[in-house]
Amino acid sequence: MQLKSEALQTFHEKVEKEHLIPLWISAPLIMPAQPKTDAVPYLWRGELLRERLMEAGELLAPGEGGDSMRRVLILENPGLKAKGLMGSTTQTLTAAVQIIFPGEFAPAHRHSQSAFRFIISGQGASTTVQGEKVLMAEGDYLLTDRYCWHEHVHEGEGPMLWMDGLDIPFVKAVNATFFEPHPEEKQKVEFPVDFSRRRYADGMLRPLADRNKRGDPSPLAAYSWKKTINALKSLDELDEVDPFDGIALEYINPANGGPANPYIGNRIQMLRPGQHTKAHRHVHSSVHIVHAGSGYSVINGERFDWSKGDIFVVPTWAWHEHANGSASEPAILFSMNDVPLFEKLQLEAEEPYRENRGYQTVSKIFS
Amino acid sequence: MQLKSEALQTFHEKVEKEHLIPLWISAPLIMPAQPKTDAVPYLWRGELLRERLMEAGELLAPGEGGDSMRRVLILENPGLKAKGLMGSTTQTLTAAVQIIFPGEFAPAHRHSQSAFRFIISGQGASTTVQGEKVLMAEGDYLLTDRYCWHEHVHEGEGPMLWMDGLDIPFVKAVNATFFEPHPEEKQKVEFPVDFSRRRYADGMLRPLADRNKRGDPSPLAAYSWKKTINALKSLDELDEVDPFDGIALEYINPANGGPANPYIGNRIQMLRPGQHTKAHRHVHSSVHIVHAGSGYSVINGERFDWSKGDIFVVPTWAWHEHANGSASEPAILFSMNDVPLFEKLQLEAEEPYRENRGYQTVSKIFS
Amino acid sequence: MQLKSEALQTFHEKVEKEHLIPLWISAPLIMPAQPKTDAVPYLWRGELLRERLMEAGELLAPGEGGDSMRRVLILENPGLKAKGLMGSTTQTLTAAVQIIFPGEFAPAHRHSQSAFRFIISGQGASTTVQGEKVLMAEGDYLLTDRYCWHEHVHEGEGPMLWMDGLDIPFVKAVNATFFEPHPEEKQKVEFPVDFSRRRYADGMLRPLADRNKRGDPSPLAAYSWKKTINALKSLDELDEVDPFDGIALEYINPANGGPANPYIGNRIQMLRPGQHTKAHRHVHSSVHIVHAGSGYSVINGERFDWSKGDIFVVPTWAWHEHANGSASEPAILFSMNDVPLFEKLQLEAEEPYRENRGYQTVSKIFS
Amino acid sequence: MQLKSEALQTFHEKVEKEHLIPLWISAPLIMPAQPKTDAVPYLWRGELLRERLMEAGELLAPGEGGDSMRRVLILENPGLKAKGLMGSTTQTLTAAVQIIFPGEFAPAHRHSQSAFRFIISGQGASTTVQGEKVLMAEGDYLLTDRYCWHEHVHEGEGPMLWMDGLDIPFVKAVNATFFEPHPEEKQKVEFPVDFSRRRYADGMLRPLADRNKRGDPSPLAAYSWKKTINALKSLDELDEVDPFDGIALEYINPANGGPANPYIGNRIQMLRPGQHTKAHRHVHSSVHIVHAGSGYSVINGERFDWSKGDIFVVPTWAWHEHANGSASEPAILFSMNDVPLFEKLQLEAEEPYRENRGYQTVSKIFS
Repeated sequence: MQLKSEALQTFHEKVEKEHLIPLWISAPLIMPAQPKTDAVPYLWRGELLRERLMEAGELLAPGEGGDSMRRVLILENPGLKAKGLMGSTTQTLTAAVQIIFPGEFAPAHRHSQSAFRFIISGQGASTTVQGEKVLMAEGDYLLTDRYCWHEHVHEGEGPMLWMDGLDIPFVKAVNATFFEPHPEEKQKVEFPVDFSRRRYADGMLRPLADRNKRGDPSPLAAYSWKKTINALKSLDELDEVDPFDGIALEYINPANGGPANPYIGNRIQMLRPGQHTKAHRHVHSSVHIVHAGSGYSVINGERFDWSKGDIFVVPTWAWHEHANGSASEPAILFSMNDVPLFEKLQLEAEEPYRENRGYQTVSKIFS
Repeated sequence: MQLKSEALQTFHEKVEKEHLIPLWISAPLIMPAQPKTDAVPYLWRGELLRERLMEAGELLAPGEGGDSMRRVLILENPGLKAKGLMGSTTQTLTAAVQIIFPGEFAPAHRHSQSAFRFIISGQGASTTVQGEKVLMAEGDYLLTDRYCWHEHVHEGEGPMLWMDGLDIPFVKAVNATFFEPHPEEKQKVEFPVDFSRRRYADGMLRPLADRNKRGDPSPLAAYSWKKTINALKSLDELDEVDPFDGIALEYINPANGGPANPYIGNRIQMLRPGQHTKAHRHVHSSVHIVHAGSGYSVINGERFDWSKGDIFVVPTWAWHEHANGSASEPAILFSMNDVPLFEKLQLEAEEPYRENRGYQTVSKIFS
Repeated sequence: MQLKSEALQTFHEKVEKEHLIPLWISAPLIMPAQPKTDAVPYLWRGELLRERLMEAGELLAPGEGGDSMRRVLILENPGLKAKGLMGSTTQTLTAAVQIIFPGEFAPAHRHSQSAFRFIISGQGASTTVQGEKVLMAEGDYLLTDRYCWHEHVHEGEGPMLWMDGLDIPFVKAVNATFFEPHPEEKQKVEFPVDFSRRRYADGMLRPLADRNKRGDPSPLAAYSWKKTINALKSLDELDEVDPFDGIALEYINPANGGPANPYIGNRIQMLRPGQHTKAHRHVHSSVHIVHAGSGYSVINGERFDWSKGDIFVVPTWAWHEHANGSASEPAILFSMNDVPLFEKLQLEAEEPYRENRGYQTVSKIFS
Repeated sequence: MQLKSEALQTFHEKVEKEHLIPLWISAPLIMPAQPKTDAVPYLWRGELLRERLMEAGELLAPGEGGDSMRRVLILENPGLKAKGLMGSTTQTLTAAVQIIFPGEFAPAHRHSQSAFRFIISGQGASTTVQGEKVLMAEGDYLLTDRYCWHEHVHEGEGPMLWMDGLDIPFVKAVNATFFEPHPEEKQKVEFPVDFSRRRYADGMLRPLADRNKRGDPSPLAAYSWKKTINALKSLDELDEVDPFDGIALEYINPANGGPANPYIGNRIQMLRPGQHTKAHRHVHSSVHIVHAGSGYSVINGERFDWSKGDIFVVPTWAWHEHANGSASEPAILFSMNDVPLFEKLQLEAEEPYRENRGYQTVSKIFS
């Protein structure tokens, strides 16, 4: 067999030069038995993010450093960066933070990537999406579907800070990137302020004019925090608690019941005082920002303590569980995920952690 | 040609006995060039309806006169009744009014017909649908999808009155009727009171547990008046006025963006003070109940004056326009239609009235 | 109770004049516990149909008796006719036979009813549908989707005879009839003869130009008998026998896998020599034409003997079973049904006959 | 500005250590204005592929070198390999060639990747997919949908050679790989040989038993060359020529009209004698194998001459055109692409080459 093995080795080397690779040597690497990712669990402190954005504010303004540039810092997953993947928070998603100061303006552009914003703090800024000016307030969730023109402006006081989410790594992986600055930097505003949010004001009623619009993008460009918190509280009162995610809801598109953003899933989840969810894992990945309270998550045996403003990553197929550290206050996490992608492609899978009554053993503490 | 004509006549008579009919004599009747209906425009006074229901209250109680009977009066279209069609308000829809008194109970049943309720007046009654007790209050809109068990009970004070809508004539026309009394008269209540309405509390957020439920029936069993009026007002502020229907919205199913009731469309419309909509006609038919204000509608040239509680019919392909009679108060109409049916079957068509700047000439006044 | 009963009677009479009907007296009639139809099982002899069409040929030509008239005899269900429903073979469907002679031309028109043709005998005629001339040969199945312009012409020898199927009663019941003669009697032929059938020649391959056409009408306007019989034989060899329908296939639209005609289902079924299927019933109704062989069907206990050319009706919810009367030859039935309608509306239901090992007792013989 | 620039540089370095990257430096790389791929156009000679497979036949047998291994050589795109992507022919697709000798058996497994086979030469081998034994013959196209158990066996004479196609790189890029060897190496055969191909024998007729199966995987596991060539010829006779692809068809799933393989598109195209198609580019990538004839393709200005058995790659967004080199014989190419993926994700885009009447200038000849 030794001889055969040598001959095989010679064969492997020969075909490599001919740009051929035998399946028998590559299969375990390209077709592993279970999902493998280079992404690692990681956490960025909210304070650090804010501080760096403030520093960036001293150094450059929106529009500088490129046609339609914003003052954005992307959270790069160390594991993916090590493999040469730039700007990736998970294998498919990019999370970032952005700041804008009073009087500033971030020029309009559009692209094939989907985007959303979750407002961390501040007031008085707005984003204009496809001719509609959308006001931003803490806890609001705003949509920018792919190929929608969008720009930001701040006409209020104090810095305005938000989290951006996009599917940059996914669109890059499939080479389908298109990007275009707006020919006139600023869109014409064609609708009343906050038009879409006011049209879908309350309850599940659709303006008659939309009766044949069932597709994407969503007719609703923004979801107010007031409604989100109300929905969380109502579900809490009904004791509807998901074992892995606590009191949890997803933002949906009223036109079709699909995800608000057709290619990025977004959820809000509340952990009750003292609650500690069970662990599970799934193909989809997620990025969470702490909106209220404090606690920790255990991801693949590593403990990540978090408090308001922190952002952390749960990579593909990583075991994870969440715990509210307070005995009196709820903790609230907003998150983004790639569930819509995996659902469209029917590649989602999920597994509960079966040992130790569903709780991992903590073997490491992130710091 | 006379000879031929006689021979033809003889032929017609012969084949009739053989249960054959030539297309050349039947085509104009069975394939008319445009929609024809035996249904006529008609209006029932709210006062009359209330009075008759109160009288019926003296004469029998729910459960009497049949297994799972309710105290219901169906509004029969005179034109359809004349053709032998029983219980039809339009060719496809049945509108009815129902009353229930404190302490009464209408036993559970289910059927292949879809149903909804729109609450006219009273409080303290509830309907239990598929194990969920749903509270009723004035202006609320409640669903009973086909094959859902449902029963009514009144634990409050005073008479409770509502409008029922069903697709009885349509299901009858296609012979697909199924009806079944509940084996135990009363369902077990399996959920907290008003469970579904509280789960979909506010905003467009879906409880995580529903993430794979995109079908019918709607996860939301009831729509509160408070939200409905809020949505009307918001649209009013945005000046979104439909030329034929005023400020108008349709109730939708948050799971899929389809109609709240998959086989009956329901809308709420507000006519601004002094507003007079333009006339049009369409294949779908509708029945309207006046929820607030007063005014009139012109249907095929006949004027129907209406005020709170009145119910009127707009048959298939009838020209119609609506006018608010008040210079200061809005008028609000709730309506049912068969739009979902015609959309599923792709048989809807619509035509604006082009003469006289869109307004019909009134040639008759209904009384 | 007598008094109350009299008072009730008085009440019923009073409200009837006000166009109101109590549910407690109408419910059993308008919401029966199970499907009820006025349609009855019936059979028309093929010989009679042919004879009457030949006689009609002496009396009038296509185009006579109306703009775009054809020489068509509709098979009227005696039960429905008795209730005043004209031109109905089942509650939703119209079956008819049509004859055209060499040199004749049936002018173009279109309508909101769906139609198909199944060729009984003859050759050399064609139908032009939306600019495509489609050749007709015995056993071929041809489509005319709603609103498609269509006309017939006979350029061959001898009479050409076919069965027409339409959803006339259904479209009439919902008042959605539209009918229009072609402004120029004859369409322009825009494609090669038998274009669509040749484009979808063989196997399941779609011409690249159709890659974004997934809707109705079908891109395939005709199905050749050669393929149909081949498919029957292949399924026969595989022993795939439906207990109620024998060797059975349905014609489908290659663009979306739905029914070939989106609103009328069509099937071909073969009963093996000596085969006797089990009985069942369903909400959908059907009309069958005998294409080859002879045998009988038992419908609601009545036996209908049939041979080539005969057409018979299975009404809604009627128990039915089929038997091939020959010990050596297969029997082949082509049929039309309203399955697509009931599937779109989710109103289909089915029940196997459980007594007597699945076979009805024959209590009557049709003649 | 120099100062600011230095300060910015310092800032960039600082945040890099904190796993943050500014958008203003990364945007052009991660969000390019148009699709960019590391994949390059490339061609492998059919002779070389066959020779290497024969050599591999001397060195190892199926089953060696791993649980459920096959004798497969993957065609690695040099551009992607250089970036560390193993086993990728385009950014999303893997093309490979496989050989099996009489008496050999390749053990059963299943995985989350989709696969198909296109038979190059030989006879007598078969693949068993989900309990159905499917015969292979030259020009046949066979499906193995994701998660379907499959194995190969050769019971005939001489080597059997085919092309495999999978979406390995895509599934790897989103980390959704699952792979499982069959617990018993061999599946039980549960159906007659070539069951599915015989069930969907001819014409567009669906066996009644499949009436509610409208999803994936396709009910049809294999497409015979005889039908494919017949379809090509029929389209040729109709003169339906795509300007970019010649006479072209795609394999479809008869259950729903979608692609035969839900995640990989497959097409057959014929270039008429002397035909030279126009150039265009699109987001989707493709891999072509020459099934008959000879000619060349120009891809991004480089000319690739090809003849029977050769396989070449058209990467994302590469300009490309095809030419039949013969004046008398047609050339036939079978191809795989990622169109279904881009259609599901709505990321496809296409652009015709507008200069030089649609033909590129050849600046380089591949050898």
